[in-house]
Amino acid sequence: MESSRREMLGLLGVAIGTAAVAPLLGQQALAVPVRAKAGDAPWPYVPLDPKAVAERAYEAYLDGHCMYGTFAGIVGELAALKGAPYNTFPLAMMKYGAGGGAEWGTLCGTLNGSAAAIALLSKNPTPLIDELFGWYQTAKLPDYRPGDAIYEIAPSVARSPLCHVSVSRWCKATGLHSLSKERYERCGWLAACCAKKAVELLNSQAAGKFQASYPLPARVQECRGCHDRGGVVENTRGKMECGVCHFSLGTGHTKI
Amino acid sequence: MESSRREMLGLLGVAIGTAAVAPLLGQQALAVPVRAKAGDAPWPYVPLDPKAVAERAYEAYLDGHCMYGTFAGIVGELAALKGAPYNTFPLAMMKYGAGGGAEWGTLCGTLNGSAAAIALLSKNPTPLIDELFGWYQTAKLPDYRPGDAIYEIAPSVARSPLCHVSVSRWCKATGLHSLSKERYERCGWLAACCAKKAVELLNSQAAGKFQASYPLPARVQECRGCHDRGGVVENTRGKMECGVCHFSLGTGHTKI
Repeated sequence: MESSRREMLGLLGVAIGTAAVAPLLGQQALAVPVRAKAGDAPWPYVPLDPKAVAERAYEAYLDGHCMYGTFAGIVGELAALKGAPYNTFPLAMMKYGAGGGAEWGTLCGTLNGSAAAIALLSKNPTPLIDELFGWYQTAKLPDYRPGDAIYEIAPSVARSPLCHVSVSRWCKATGLHSLSKERYERCGWLAACCAKKAVELLNSQAAGKFQASYPLPARVQECRGCHDRGGVVENTRGKMECGVCHFSLGTGHTKI
Repeated sequence: MESSRREMLGLLGVAIGTAAVAPLLGQQALAVPVRAKAGDAPWPYVPLDPKAVAERAYEAYLDGHCMYGTFAGIVGELAALKGAPYNTFPLAMMKYGAGGGAEWGTLCGTLNGSAAAIALLSKNPTPLIDELFGWYQTAKLPDYRPGDAIYEIAPSVARSPLCHVSVSRWCKATGLHSLSKERYERCGWLAACCAKKAVELLNSQAAGKFQASYPLPARVQECRGCHDRGGVVENTRGKMECGVCHFSLGTGHTKI
């Protein structure tokens, strides 16, 4: 009987819905009627509150940096609300993406973590990741202030999904140092706003309303006309802004 | 009694070691005496056969591209040999890293997947990831030919952990196209050799024998003297080779 009562309560929790149950449950797991085995992907997605995820991502950032922050913000929120299988994910592994991958400055950890979460939770992740990356490199970010923010942070435009470029352009925009406490705080805000954006995208896709807003820029399409599939110099791949690194094309580039 | 016999056999399997047990087991799970809960990280690591992992990574690449290939090569091998918790990991999520993250050309997927696996399985992952990235950007790769290889592939030196740079430099070295069947095959070989290297590093760390061979290059240290922590222009972070993108420093750079 005790077992049946527990099952009943678990199913009732799901029926009541996430928002009503969450404050009562905290980290406690609820029975979730998921069909996926833990080893499968994607896992089922239920719409989340973007602001709650942003706040959780900022707090997680303080524990494990940028990639962990965004991933734990999203998947940790599902674990807190729904239990298994979300609470079986070894979240701490995502700390490797800090500083663009073990401090190498490659893919921004807030994007790596958000993309990983999207891939775990969406049946069609690529359009959402494209949108997230396109937004990241063109928007003035961070665009969300966590409730427990320590410093005030001015935004910048990264023009790239790379940590190295993103940080340097923020330093240029603010005059602040790359290893300063303010830059550290800035990346915590970035974790919050990227996790929030990722959840907004997941929510819109789950509602059947997702529409892409960040097509490949015309200037990148122009470069790809020669350098991508079928071009006269088919010698590259990628969707990043070309001019951010290829900033002196006058030298050594065939006239076009 | 049956339960005790199973436990005995499970422990015996671990005692005999991976290589002896693997051919008998295939995909079947063994009881593994792990203390970690599925939600914790790292998960316990047991030394793996680098060549078996390389072959599995190549096969997995054909199913899900570069990041998935390396991650499934390593964690899939553990799942095949040991069962839980390795077989609970939602491997398919790692497909997002293909082509440097949804084809954006950022962090090479073979590195993103290998680093993720190292972070899942090592108590001290950063030195191994540093070594892996340092090796990747300076070695002639691929340096391993999968048994089921479809084409013969010439190697190149990437000089960068970025997919975009790695692919373009391989195209330059070979005269082949970036979207060709040979380049696709080349990245499968890369998945094999990066997963193999990652497992060699994990094995050496597990044996207490790991030693770093790829320190930060002197020319990067020189740049960081001014641009990193405490420098006169502390405006960046990262460990990538500076000159690969900053190839015309004569223009617009203060004389040093």
